[in-house]
Amino acid sequence: MVSAPDGRVVVTTDLLLEGRHFRRDWSSGYDIGRKAAAQNLSDVVAMGAHPTGIVVGLGMPADVGTGWLDDLADGFRDECDLVGASVAGGDTTRCDLVVIGVTALGDLRGRAPVTRSGARPGDVVAVAGRLGHAAAGLALLQAGPAGGLGGAAEGLGGAAEGLDGVAGEPGGPAGGVRGLVDAHRRPRPPYACGPQAAELGATSMLDVSDGLLQDLGHVSKASGVGIVLDPGAFTVTPEMERAARLLGADPVEWVLTGGEDHALAATFPRDVRLPSGWTVVGRVVRGSGVQVEGRAPERGGWDHFRE
Amino acid sequence: MVSAPDGRVVVTTDLLLEGRHFRRDWSSGYDIGRKAAAQNLSDVVAMGAHPTGIVVGLGMPADVGTGWLDDLADGFRDECDLVGASVAGGDTTRCDLVVIGVTALGDLRGRAPVTRSGARPGDVVAVAGRLGHAAAGLALLQAGPAGGLGGAAEGLGGAAEGLDGVAGEPGGPAGGVRGLVDAHRRPRPPYACGPQAAELGATSMLDVSDGLLQDLGHVSKASGVGIVLDPGAFTVTPEMERAARLLGADPVEWVLTGGEDHALAATFPRDVRLPSGWTVVGRVVRGSGVQVEGRAPERGGWDHFRE
Repeated sequence: MVSAPDGRVVVTTDLLLEGRHFRRDWSSGYDIGRKAAAQNLSDVVAMGAHPTGIVVGLGMPADVGTGWLDDLADGFRDECDLVGASVAGGDTTRCDLVVIGVTALGDLRGRAPVTRSGARPGDVVAVAGRLGHAAAGLALLQAGPAGGLGGAAEGLGGAAEGLDGVAGEPGGPAGGVRGLVDAHRRPRPPYACGPQAAELGATSMLDVSDGLLQDLGHVSKASGVGIVLDPGAFTVTPEMERAARLLGADPVEWVLTGGEDHALAATFPRDVRLPSGWTVVGRVVRGSGVQVEGRAPERGGWDHFRE
Repeated sequence: MVSAPDGRVVVTTDLLLEGRHFRRDWSSGYDIGRKAAAQNLSDVVAMGAHPTGIVVGLGMPADVGTGWLDDLADGFRDECDLVGASVAGGDTTRCDLVVIGVTALGDLRGRAPVTRSGARPGDVVAVAGRLGHAAAGLALLQAGPAGGLGGAAEGLGGAAEGLDGVAGEPGGPAGGVRGLVDAHRRPRPPYACGPQAAELGATSMLDVSDGLLQDLGHVSKASGVGIVLDPGAFTVTPEMERAARLLGADPVEWVLTGGEDHALAATFPRDVRLPSGWTVVGRVVRGSGVQVEGRAPERGGWDHFRE
């Protein structure tokens, strides 16, 4: 049982599959629990609601030990603790692979939910939270020691142990890349920014789960507007620069198309003063689709979802 | 978004896996949708709550057609319509097998939820809905044409077509068995009986999903009481008698251990007058475990969960 003082409840659900959404050799049970909870709690705050509880349906093979299961449950609990939500219950069944179904509930505290359909020409587009970090981390894990990183990346394999030794201390002058792998394993959604944006009068909002361009494409379509992004407004950290050099990749591509950081993207009336935590990255215009100024389509300049 | 006028919401979740919980060659997409919704809505009414909505997480292989998916969605919607609940949303992802995560929400309308822990010595045990039908239907499907049913069961195979021709018309004088296969494919939980039992003062209640003996074992354990069942109180239909003869099985075994009919089992104070729809099948006593009077343990006379 979960409280719903508002008389309504927002509800969101996700299914996470081993191999597709996580790998047990790349992430611990604890990390997987944190991440599975985070991506649903993030969906709730993206509606401007306060998360109240989650329920979990779990399928798993017989070879998954109780230790792993305890770690997973600890991850769920600790992530929920960040927002004051509870783990209200669950269901367990046997399955050939680990399957995690998470449903999160939230309370609107009397406000209307923020949807994808309210963006208006003249609004600003702003983001809160990290973008591209998880995508960079995943690219590092996928490259691994045998994936073209060569001798410099020894140990960047299954468990990704030893990353720090290779790439410098996280946050250090050389810019380590271990923090990016951690970002893949355990997103840090900017939970407080969701209800905050609703209070500030956000006209639309969503959780960036599939990549900023694709997700803003949903806002563009639902609101019947165009969106123009300023690529120079995005933060590319030294850590991402270093990872991009290691992998021969484009860090702005990670920012524009990487999803699993669970940042928030919202549109606001132009005259709203945005608090720290929010960065203006573009504007809403008449038209359709998502355009990145000065960037060619094949470099992620146009959303695939444009109609 | 789902309404929660009570200020609380009961929430229940289940994960259904292809091969384990359903087979696409034995059940249509529509039937699977109906059943997946039914087992969750049944959990909600078993708490005495009124179902308000469901959300669905769906994993499926690329070869599942949109026709099958539409049928599944129709099944969800039609089952929810029976109780006035809505399909509030969902999530879809690729998976090697069909995985269905259903979460159902319910409203208590100001009442306390009925749990498993309130049964007291002196209470009566009553059931509502069918018991053993789905188990008999599954046994018929599993036996199939090659499973020992011999020439009499031609056509009782994958699609179970032709059952009526073999075993007489459902409800006819000979007692057809096709109705049992239908019962496996599409349970008919006695939805109205859940909130009704709560109003009548049920001291404990649950949805019979794993079999009556096993599920009453949970009541016995949670309430710290013993339960004695009268095997003569249960209904064994002519259809079940006929299926039992065909398969050389014991129909009372299906009644006591078959789960998927989603009957309700509840305990009530002895002086409560139970309306039609409820059948008294036993009594709550001091002690522990679940006993079936006059029945040997190896015939399902004692619950495996007895402590």
